[in-house]
Amino acid sequence: MSERHQQSKEIGDVPTGTGEDTGNAGIVRTKQVTFDQPGQRLALEGGGELGPLTLAYETYGRLSEARDNAVLVTHALSGDAHVAGRHSANDRRAGWWDMLIGPGKALDTGRYFVICSNVIGGCSGSTGPASENPATGRPYGTDFPIITIADMVNAQAMLLDHLGIDKLLAVVGGSMGGMQVLEWAIAHPQRVHLCVPLATAARQPTQAIAFNEVGRQAIMADPNWHDGHYYGGRPPSKGLSVARMVGHITYLSDEAMQEKFGRRLRDIHDYSFTFSADFEVESYLRHQGLAFTDRFDANSYLYITRALDYFDLTRQHGSLVQAFREVTARFLVLAFSSDWLHPPYQLKEIVSALRATHKHVSYYEVESHYGHDAFLLEREKMQGIIEAFLKSGARSFAAAR
Amino acid sequence: MSERHQQSKEIGDVPTGTGEDTGNAGIVRTKQVTFDQPGQRLALEGGGELGPLTLAYETYGRLSEARDNAVLVTHALSGDAHVAGRHSANDRRAGWWDMLIGPGKALDTGRYFVICSNVIGGCSGSTGPASENPATGRPYGTDFPIITIADMVNAQAMLLDHLGIDKLLAVVGGSMGGMQVLEWAIAHPQRVHLCVPLATAARQPTQAIAFNEVGRQAIMADPNWHDGHYYGGRPPSKGLSVARMVGHITYLSDEAMQEKFGRRLRDIHDYSFTFSADFEVESYLRHQGLAFTDRFDANSYLYITRALDYFDLTRQHGSLVQAFREVTARFLVLAFSSDWLHPPYQLKEIVSALRATHKHVSYYEVESHYGHDAFLLEREKMQGIIEAFLKSGARSFAAAR
Repeated sequence: MSERHQQSKEIGDVPTGTGEDTGNAGIVRTKQVTFDQPGQRLALEGGGELGPLTLAYETYGRLSEARDNAVLVTHALSGDAHVAGRHSANDRRAGWWDMLIGPGKALDTGRYFVICSNVIGGCSGSTGPASENPATGRPYGTDFPIITIADMVNAQAMLLDHLGIDKLLAVVGGSMGGMQVLEWAIAHPQRVHLCVPLATAARQPTQAIAFNEVGRQAIMADPNWHDGHYYGGRPPSKGLSVARMVGHITYLSDEAMQEKFGRRLRDIHDYSFTFSADFEVESYLRHQGLAFTDRFDANSYLYITRALDYFDLTRQHGSLVQAFREVTARFLVLAFSSDWLHPPYQLKEIVSALRATHKHVSYYEVESHYGHDAFLLEREKMQGIIEAFLKSGARSFAAAR
Repeated sequence: MSERHQQSKEIGDVPTGTGEDTGNAGIVRTKQVTFDQPGQRLALEGGGELGPLTLAYETYGRLSEARDNAVLVTHALSGDAHVAGRHSANDRRAGWWDMLIGPGKALDTGRYFVICSNVIGGCSGSTGPASENPATGRPYGTDFPIITIADMVNAQAMLLDHLGIDKLLAVVGGSMGGMQVLEWAIAHPQRVHLCVPLATAARQPTQAIAFNEVGRQAIMADPNWHDGHYYGGRPPSKGLSVARMVGHITYLSDEAMQEKFGRRLRDIHDYSFTFSADFEVESYLRHQGLAFTDRFDANSYLYITRALDYFDLTRQHGSLVQAFREVTARFLVLAFSSDWLHPPYQLKEIVSALRATHKHVSYYEVESHYGHDAFLLEREKMQGIIEAFLKSGARSFAAAR
């Protein structure tokens, strides 16, 4: 096992993410740990093993001496380990959930030791299809094995072992992050005290599979894709860009799109009567698609969407009630009213199954017109609910130990 | 002007679509008329003119001596002139709205003379980007001018002149067809007695523009597209296929998708842990995408979606109320409860504006879980409503003449 980019081996001493510089989560670095010993290979749900395995992660705040204040945040399709704070003093952009993580925020880094790691199959520091295949010395490409949400979670469990954390105070995540939260509660029931799944589902719905399949076909139709072995050459950027455009539409509600763009034209007073991006919404989508290709690997998009589509707790366990039977964690489930990728009824299915097995569960439907993206935007509406749930849970967690 | 594939110049004598053979709309042929005289060029909304202009059309039933029983059906994005009946006795597939058109059906060909023509910009017999550009002798490709819904309607008006029809009893159409219906009522108020727009909008909504833009980008990203000049070579089928897949998702409701496909696997008992089409919904979409490339031209997809996206009656007329001010037609407006491409609120906008100008308008929201496709499927729920509206309108039409 090797630990890179880290000043100290003692996690509690790492002077990162204390927020003293900025009043927020502060300056953070992405760390990496590599599991490369014979006993450290990750057994995969689809068969076979993955190793050596590198995980990129960030931490914020300090792990308590009792090691009872760790909160794992799990990310969505295009997320990464950089969930809060900034990478340098002049970093213009904070981590993707910075609004909720920092001193005094919902995930209060003055109280909690917050961890976020890039999922396996990803392209932001953890082992994925762009990583070196030890069998060939070249990037895996599509020789990378199909991975699942369960595999992602099992890799995170290895990270927790490495960090010396037996049991998490909480796992919190939205969308694909929410699926990981559910999987944590079920696969590692003794290691999680609180679960906060947001804007997610216990099984990927048909329509979401359909949109993902469009994205995959767009990538695979790109002649630069070369069956996934494009590293060293030109990547399938046009295909990935189209895939991302589709995704973006599903993240916004109809209403939010009308409000944000309407039918407004971009820098012109009349239609161009060409195929230029006359409408702001066209320009926005083209920009989002293109910008995504700078930071994301097309093969990772294929693998991660496949993991999403394969996610189905009812299939694994017979029924959702059965899936939750051994769960010990307390749940806070958050739905967002205008989310049409994971509408409230999908969250209510989770809540009903938890209640049927007499679990401790709170459910909130946040009124929002932002659509699926609401879990990344509705700070004020989520802050108090999550904060109170964690504080109360921290007390019961301490009392139980 | 030249008329091809037609046995007789007298429309009333054309022995097509009487339904005597099959009990349905019968055997029909697609006819074509070409407007190639100097005075017959079509002035386009975006500037310039189009000519020579060929229109493909089909007719069913007989035009009455008083020429007061003509019903024009306008088609949606991927439709064509073949709206009912069959092209031969062993033709396995009837026209796209055969369920509503034929003897005794809602559009009763025993009473009405039904006409449907392929829109300009299309690829099913009317002049479009694959047609010969008279300036070069080669296919237009993207030298074809951008056309609008108004241009489509003005071309249909030329067809009516050719058929000797001054005033239509009715114009009926769903989705893009519904936009043409609205445009007919506004641009040619003296030529329409009844209007039946279904599952449509007075202006293309932002989300629909967004999905169309994804489709266009997928086509344009296909290396076979060659800026639209691919005729004679390999067409951009992969891009068009992805565009069609996106479209198909928007035509089905979340509920209909769950019901039709759910998470069912195709011919396998377990996940393949590959990128094959494990799920039925993946297989369905791939098939729909691929099949579409056999019958549709990618450039037509670009032009017709652009016409859709440019459609905005409020922009043309200041407000919807203003747009409808000169309208004389009576309206039957049909919305479908689970249509998320054109949700009922978009139809209600039309109804409100018509009512604000004291027009005669009836509105029905058909309960359906089929989504946007409902207007092509809910025969029983539409039949009676449309039938009664046409019958009553035919009486008032005759009385007024």
